Formats: sequence, C-alpha cells, structure tokens
Amino acid sequence: MKRPAGVITHPMGFSASGVACGIKTGKEAPDVALLAADQPVTAAAVFTTNKVCAAPVLVSREHMKTSRGRIRAVVANSGNANACTGKQGMTDARSTAELIGVKPHEVLVASTGLIGRPLPMDKMDAGIRRAVEKLSSDYRGGAGFLRGIMTTDRFPKESERSIQVAGKEFRLSGVVKGAAMIAPDMATMLSFVTTDAALGRAQLQKLLAGAVGRSFNRITVDGHMSTNDTCVALASGRSGVTVTPGGRLEKKFAAALEDVLLELALLIVRDGEGAVRTAELRVSGARSAADAELAARAVAGSTLVRTALFGGDPNWGRIVSMAGACGCAFTEAKTSLKINGLPIYRNGRPLPVTKEIEKTMTADHVVFDLSLGVGRASSVVYTCDLGHSYVKLNAEYTT
Amino acid sequence: MKRPAGVITHPMGFSASGVACGIKTGKEAPDVALLAADQPVTAAAVFTTNKVCAAPVLVSREHMKTSRGRIRAVVANSGNANACTGKQGMTDARSTAELIGVKPHEVLVASTGLIGRPLPMDKMDAGIRRAVEKLSSDYRGGAGFLRGIMTTDRFPKESERSIQVAGKEFRLSGVVKGAAMIAPDMATMLSFVTTDAALGRAQLQKLLAGAVGRSFNRITVDGHMSTNDTCVALASGRSGVTVTPGGRLEKKFAAALEDVLLELALLIVRDGEGAVRTAELRVSGARSAADAELAARAVAGSTLVRTALFGGDPNWGRIVSMAGACGCAFTEAKTSLKINGLPIYRNGRPLPVTKEIEKTMTADHVVFDLSLGVGRASSVVYTCDLGHSYVKLNAEYTT
Repeated sequence: MKRPAGVITHPMGFSASGVACGIKTGKEAPDVALLAADQPVTAAAVFTTNKVCAAPVLVSREHMKTSRGRIRAVVANSGNANACTGKQGMTDARSTAELIGVKPHEVLVASTGLIGRPLPMDKMDAGIRRAVEKLSSDYRGGAGFLRGIMTTDRFPKESERSIQVAGKEFRLSGVVKGAAMIAPDMATMLSFVTTDAALGRAQLQKLLAGAVGRSFNRITVDGHMSTNDTCVALASGRSGVTVTPGGRLEKKFAAALEDVLLELALLIVRDGEGAVRTAELRVSGARSAADAELAARAVAGSTLVRTALFGGDPNWGRIVSMAGACGCAFTEAKTSLKINGLPIYRNGRPLPVTKEIEKTMTADHVVFDLSLGVGRASSVVYTCDLGHSYVKLNAEYTT
Repeated sequence: MKRPAGVITHPMGFSASGVACGIKTGKEAPDVALLAADQPVTAAAVFTTNKVCAAPVLVSREHMKTSRGRIRAVVANSGNANACTGKQGMTDARSTAELIGVKPHEVLVASTGLIGRPLPMDKMDAGIRRAVEKLSSDYRGGAGFLRGIMTTDRFPKESERSIQVAGKEFRLSGVVKGAAMIAPDMATMLSFVTTDAALGRAQLQKLLAGAVGRSFNRITVDGHMSTNDTCVALASGRSGVTVTPGGRLEKKFAAALEDVLLELALLIVRDGEGAVRTAELRVSGARSAADAELAARAVAGSTLVRTALFGGDPNWGRIVSMAGACGCAFTEAKTSLKINGLPIYRNGRPLPVTKEIEKTMTADHVVFDLSLGVGRASSVVYTCDLGHSYVKLNAEYTT
C-alpha cells in the first residue's frame, strides 16, 4: 500500500502518532491514532445523524459542549467501533479520553471497526500510553496517525492546501478513512482537519458544516450512514494569520476547506466497495433545490444505474426513468442527458449511441449531465459503480 | 422452463392466445399476447406512476376513460416497450388497438421490452391477425398468452382462486410477467386478472387499487419503477355471481384478489435479478404508518442488507443502523430484531449469534421482524438478495 505523506501535522502546532496495540486481532497494523495540539485550540465537529449512535460520538459531542470547543487532543481507534455497547461503551469512551493525560473534556474520541463488542480497555490503555510517547510533529507522526484510523481502505486519503496572505502563510490539511459502510459489519467515515490559521469557534463550525455539506454529504456508495461518522477540524492559530469572519480571507479559507474535503470525499468514492470507476451525477434545470437533490440522489443511488456503470453501459433509460419515478417535477419532453459531454437523450428522445459514447462510459470518471428543463436549481452527487467486488466484499463476510 | 397452466382463461367468458411474430429478434418465443372477452366486460386498471410513461400506458388510460371501463380485449407485446418513442409511439399504440377488430377504445394495450425503438408495426399487424385467429378458451390459449408477455422471467407466474357462494362458484385468475427492471434496458411488470364474478366499474377499480397496494407495491428488487407497469382486471360476470358493494362477498372477493396478487408479487421477487433467496421485512411498533413504510423500504432497499442476505450473513448491524438513519422515529434502546423468529438484537443490545441463527439465514425465505417500540404502526416489504447474478444480469448487457 502507498505510504501516507502524513499531512495532518504540516500545520504548525500539532503532533500525532499511530501505534499497534492488538485491537485488530492478528494484524500488526496501527489501530490507535492520536492527534494532539500544543495547547487547547479551536475545534469544530460534525457527527453522524444516525439515531443509532456510537458511544464515542456521544462522548465527543458532550466534550465539545463542556470544553466550549477548545480541544487539546483527538484519539481514535480502528478495529472496534464501540457501537451498540450500552453503558459499558460510554464508560469506555470516557476512560479513553482520560488516558491522554490532559483534561478529559478537552479530548475528542472516535472509533471505527466491529460493532457490538466492548472496547478492549487493557489494550487501549497500553496503546494510548505508547501513542502519547510517540507523538511527533514530523511526517512519521502524521503518517502513523492516518494508518491508525484506516480499516478496509485500499489506499491512504489525505489532502492539503497552503494559502499565502500578505507575506504570511497558513496551512490546511485533511485526512479521511472510509470506503462507506464496507465489511466487516459497518464501517465509518472518520475525517480530521488541521489548520494553523486562527478562527473563532462558531466561525469554524459554520465553515466546517458548510464544507461537509458540499463534500462528504455529496457522496453515496450505498446510501448507508454509519453510527460513528465524525469529522473534526482543529485550528491552532500558530501561523499568525487570523481569518476574520465575513472577510475575503474567510472566503479563501472556506474554498480551501471545501477543496480539501471534496478531494477526500472523492477518494472515498474511488476506494468505495471495490469500485472500478466513479460517476458524477449533475442535475440541472430542476424546479427546486430539493428536487435537484432528490433526483441526483435517486439516480446515483440506483443499483441499476451503478451496475450499468460497472458494465460500462451507456444506459440512459435507467437514468431517465429513475428521475421520472423519484417524485421531482419532471416533464419527459424537456429532459436531456449527456454522458461526459456527449448528448445521448435530448428533450425526451433518445439519440444514437455512438462508438464515442460507448468508449467514454469505460473512463475512470463518468459525468452524467441530467437536465430537467423545468427550473433553475441544480445539484451534484458522486458515486461509484456496483460490481462483483462490492458483492464479494459485502456478502462473503460472516458476522 | 416450466409450462404455464394457462389460468387466465379459467374464468368463464374469456379467451386468449399468444403467437410469435418476430419482435424478439432471433427468438421463436411468443411475443404477441391477446386476451379477449366474449362481450364488453367491467375493467379496472392501475398504471405506472413514473413520469416517463410509455405510449401504451397513455393510450390504455385514454381508452379506460372513453370506454367508461367497458373493455373487450387486452393486447400485449414483449420485445419492444414502445417507450420514449414520441408521437410515432402513440400512433403505433393506437394502431395496435385498431388491429383487433373491435371498437378500438374497448381495447387496452401493453408493451414490454426494449425502449427507444419504434414498434415494428408490420410484424405486429401479422402477429395480431394470427393471435385473433388462435383465440381459445382452453389451457393452450391461456398458456400462450402468458408466454407471450414474458421477457427475462425464469418461470411462468400465475395464481388462481375459486370461491363458492350459496351453490354457485366464481373464479379469479391472475398472471404476471416481470422480475423488476431487469436487462435489457428496462423491464416491466405486466399483470392481468380475470374473474367471472360480476362487479361494478368503480367497485372493481377500488378493489384492484387496494390489492395492488398490498401486493405489487410491497415488493422491491431495485427500487426502480418501469415506464410501462400495468395491472388490468377484467370481470365478465358470466358465473352469475354478483359481488354486491359493501357485502360479505365483497370482502371474500377482496381477500382472494389480494391473495392472488400477493402470490404473483412474491413470485416476481423470487425470480428477481437472479436471486437465491427472498426476504420479508416486517416493521412493527412504528410511530406512524408513514414511519413504518419508510423504515421497511429503507432496510429492504439497502444494498448492504441485500448483499448480506446473499451471503447468508445475519448482519443485524446493517438493518438496525439503516432504520436509525432513515428518518423514522427511532430510539436505539427500544429497538429489537428477530430473524425467522430468533432474537438477535433486543432493546438496543446485540444478542449472541447462535448456530441456529446462522443456519436460518440461509433459508429460501428469511423474515426479519424489526420492532421499533415507539408506536403501533406496522408495515411489510418483500425483497430478494443482491448477488453476483444481479450484477451479471445488469452490467453485462450493452445498450
């Protein structure tokens, strides 16, 4: 597997580590990951909205409140999700935060892996002690951290930007693990972002929520939301650059944050469930934003569309008929579809399927432009194909 | 393939036929099917609600109005869906009705097969002439009819009931074709029901709509609605039994109709997309009927749940987490799940996965009882597994 670059410690003020403590049985891969700030920093977080919610999510939500968004460390483990574990799970998640050696409510926790099994606290204890010792702000720390949160990922997923402002510079880095709810049991999206720009708590929360909405919330592999999904952003301010709310620099920061998260989101889709290609479902001309969203999600979520994508089949009928069935305002005679820019369906009528269209369907990334012609709203959703590897990954595992 | 019994002509007053006229190129399978009543009979019909709607559906809707639900014949073809065919498609669907030799508005038309291609009217012309000649009220007519509407079906699907009433008897027969939107392009559910009981038009329409809601609308293979779905019921009254509205006999009739349609619906699921097993998703204890419906459809439609079903994996986590994410009122600690009657998750906590549970997951039919514990509403949805055959069927076809 490709080595992580370890971008998470590139912004100033952060150190990280990843150690193997045996939670992933039979594997020597790192399974405890620690990200620490030199001092309490501004934090923002977005969590799963699944009503089945893992203990670490509940505890992190609590700590975000009690610390008023001033966080010293994030500790994550892979191999055990600490989900569906009842009161013991809550106790274990709290104990995990206590093991870091700073005020527990300044620690966020995240877990991913098997559900319904108690977190092995003896292993966590030993693992976290070593993780604290190994904290480093160079690439080894950052790379270890990323390896420590990965589960079934086929490659590390990281992205960074550096922004120049009047002779100064700040950095923004992000990492993610996840290939949607992949075996075993359920997997999770965990994402961590660091920056050395200075931002306020409410400001960072708003920017993070907006960027998540335009990135992680725009992808679908199987429409299945995990119980552990977590995205945390930490801002150390150590670059000396302050992002003033409402200013031009905030726009730049927001754009960079969205870029980073979208890049990470697309890496998830590319890795998703043994995918051979990705697709971008652009809907335009919808009656309302809700309609655009509805159509894009319905088409991108269709198993018939995704198996056609796997087969490289320019099956416009499946796309158009799903749009017609999903409940959005729809007029057959106003609907058009392009595949990678090539028209295949115009104003309700199919066009000839050319060799060029057949060829473009086998590209790594296929863009479908579905124009509904009944309004001005638009949306985009990213997905990947559904092929034999998906079935293999998701069926041939026994609970 | 198993031979059809030809039940559609068992009720008195009907004849049928099926002939091969070459619409399915390279195949000698029947592709034109004709069902005729000796005289105009009471008709009811339910059509696709997809906004991409095939010409035969538009024409049949029109004819149901102009004939005031008094119908002489239904003509169906397989191999060509006459969908996305514009004005020519409408002309062709109308001409098809005219070819039968009775008043055209007393004829309903239905098509299934490839979309976006004009109906070969010369072949249809010759086919329908022969179909009229071959009309027969014995099993050959009924069997020919069923074979004439089948496309990718792996077996014929038919069901019948006979009901005794005070020394008299009437019959109710139904057939269906379809395995959801299977290749090529898009397929369709076409269902035809005959009875020799006497019913009024509005009465039959109401009973049919109700029964479709509790049968065909309760199954999902890939959540993809065809542009051609049609269910037609014809009542000849020839048994001499009149089903009085609101009476006890109407309840009997309604139950029999629902039985027949549910049996047909389950045969579709069993045939669906190369399925190896079927599943019944029962949701109880929901806050509202809409919530029960939402949860049952979300879980039954989940590709993760359906691949686990293929793998025979008792993956309660995927079921519970999908219910938690779908938006219904949900409290983890009140949620329980049984698989074929065996408890695997109770009040938010997983129970041990016994050998018995592992074994029952490989049964032909798996019943999931998901109890939400927050109300009294319930719902049920039927589905099938998603395995390699599904991918093969839906990916390895080129438009």
